[in-house]
Amino acid sequence: MIRNIYSKWYNKFALICVAFVLFGISALAEENVEKYGIVIHGGAGTITKKAMTPEKEKMYREKLNEALEAGYKILENNGSSLDAVEKAITILEDCPLFNSGKGAVFTNNETNELDSSIMDGKTLNAGAVTGVRHIKNPISLARLVMEKSKHVMFVQDGAEAFAKSQGMSLIDAGYFRTERRLKQIQEIKKKEQETGKKISSLPLCTVGAAALDKAGNLAAGTSTGGMTNKRFGRVGDSPIIGAGTYANNKTCAISATGWGEYFIRSVATHDVSAMMEYAGLALSDAASKVIEKIGALGGFGGFIAIDKKGNVAMPFNTRGMYRGYKLNGKKAVIKMYRE
Amino acid sequence: MIRNIYSKWYNKFALICVAFVLFGISALAEENVEKYGIVIHGGAGTITKKAMTPEKEKMYREKLNEALEAGYKILENNGSSLDAVEKAITILEDCPLFNSGKGAVFTNNETNELDSSIMDGKTLNAGAVTGVRHIKNPISLARLVMEKSKHVMFVQDGAEAFAKSQGMSLIDAGYFRTERRLKQIQEIKKKEQETGKKISSLPLCTVGAAALDKAGNLAAGTSTGGMTNKRFGRVGDSPIIGAGTYANNKTCAISATGWGEYFIRSVATHDVSAMMEYAGLALSDAASKVIEKIGALGGFGGFIAIDKKGNVAMPFNTRGMYRGYKLNGKKAVIKMYRE
Repeated sequence: MIRNIYSKWYNKFALICVAFVLFGISALAEENVEKYGIVIHGGAGTITKKAMTPEKEKMYREKLNEALEAGYKILENNGSSLDAVEKAITILEDCPLFNSGKGAVFTNNETNELDSSIMDGKTLNAGAVTGVRHIKNPISLARLVMEKSKHVMFVQDGAEAFAKSQGMSLIDAGYFRTERRLKQIQEIKKKEQETGKKISSLPLCTVGAAALDKAGNLAAGTSTGGMTNKRFGRVGDSPIIGAGTYANNKTCAISATGWGEYFIRSVATHDVSAMMEYAGLALSDAASKVIEKIGALGGFGGFIAIDKKGNVAMPFNTRGMYRGYKLNGKKAVIKMYRE
Repeated sequence: MIRNIYSKWYNKFALICVAFVLFGISALAEENVEKYGIVIHGGAGTITKKAMTPEKEKMYREKLNEALEAGYKILENNGSSLDAVEKAITILEDCPLFNSGKGAVFTNNETNELDSSIMDGKTLNAGAVTGVRHIKNPISLARLVMEKSKHVMFVQDGAEAFAKSQGMSLIDAGYFRTERRLKQIQEIKKKEQETGKKISSLPLCTVGAAALDKAGNLAAGTSTGGMTNKRFGRVGDSPIIGAGTYANNKTCAISATGWGEYFIRSVATHDVSAMMEYAGLALSDAASKVIEKIGALGGFGGFIAIDKKGNVAMPFNTRGMYRGYKLNGKKAVIKMYRE
């Protein structure tokens, strides 16, 4: 009988031991799963539920989801964060809903002038172009500058000459001419004539992406048509490394959207990284603090960011921001409003 | 007799008291003297005593001294750090010894395309222009962008149209055509033809200034002709806020010179400020650390910087850097070589 009791307890004890070991192994396995993911934005501004129709909301959601899933798929298949960022941005550039590529706004001269930049967090290499008019996907040209030249930034005709020298085809400027944007600029110019005042319409719907791949490398990119009615070859933050785009494997990858001048003056995306590196702040705290600083200066906008551990932050101080992320093993999250 | 002794001691004691009070007042006065000063550079590169003639050295010294004294005089007369920076840079731009304004190098197309930026540490406002060809003093146009537009950066023809709209006169591009620089580009192009290889001559003799005025306001500016033989409207760090130029009353004012691409990728001038603000580093430590980081990436160059307390730093990782500073109550210091 004693032997029986002993054996019963022994069996229970053994079972508990096995459970512990299995639990330990599974916890360890969980810890060792590579974190990876992508976060994107389609611009910050006065985006409210009230001003949106269900049809319009559906279109934005579907396109953001398409970009997110395409970028994520690359990461899942062991692709690089650079490839994921470029792919996601290309999809948004090709969609007339956003102010980049096909949907770019018009300048005061009724041209479309596009800016873009990309950065590799592993090497701190970067590429940027500004004021291009015949490049279907400016993000791909920015990447070409990064990878095929010793330089970081090319401007206007020069950037297009570089594209040509690399075998990238230039397209007719008419490609960028959408009715919606043309109507926008014509209404603004009419109003200028009526009031005698110059109107700078603030930028909306710049696009960007940031990603962490399975190898632990971060990358970020941004693409925009800039401000409606812009003059004088104005350059905003999107093609400026440290302002609109920044990536560093030590800290985070980040893309900005909003009133570009304030992001340039704040060296905004680098400031987030610097707060993490030098003050030990978490990504979400650093990103929120920089948006607060920009607000205090009188500016507005937002960031999307991912850090080296796969944490995501998407702070903004506008009414809304088209945004979303997808992390490994999790469902995609897409948001538009302040919620 | 007792009264006599008493009176004698009393007199001595009174004298000591008076001395103490006077010493105290003078010490206090010393403490309250406003710190102010200016620091400038005329570019970093292979500047060695061996390669220099006494006549050439004298010319550089005299021009650096002239710029330093002109900026300093403004500070001494209660002028602003912005005025001091603009004045000092204007003098260097007007001198063919340096690669900015009159002495700018040639592009591959045998044009002179100038970049400049300026930043106000009090307001974090900033202005920048890139690729201008008909502006005698690009630093003054950068300041005009900062003060007379809502924008930070204008490019090429657009920047010149803005200048014109503000009543700034455009000059004939022939003004920038110096024999020395023309010979340089022609020799490089000849070599390119002979070897069949493309040559990017690294930038030398960018100019810059940073100043602290009596009101405690910091400012910085940078001006350059960029790389000899540059193509594709290449933009270096000089017109990029946070890369070539940065000023923030919380920390320091700083201007960079060297291989611009590395300064852009390092967001170099903002990184110095961020190390001071977030990690509590002294100016000289922060500036040296960033130059080390640039060196580790494979880049070279230097900074000139002044902090809110009037400390100056001038680190570089090249053979030499044209540089100098003048602080209140002190003699001007001008250096060229590693010493």
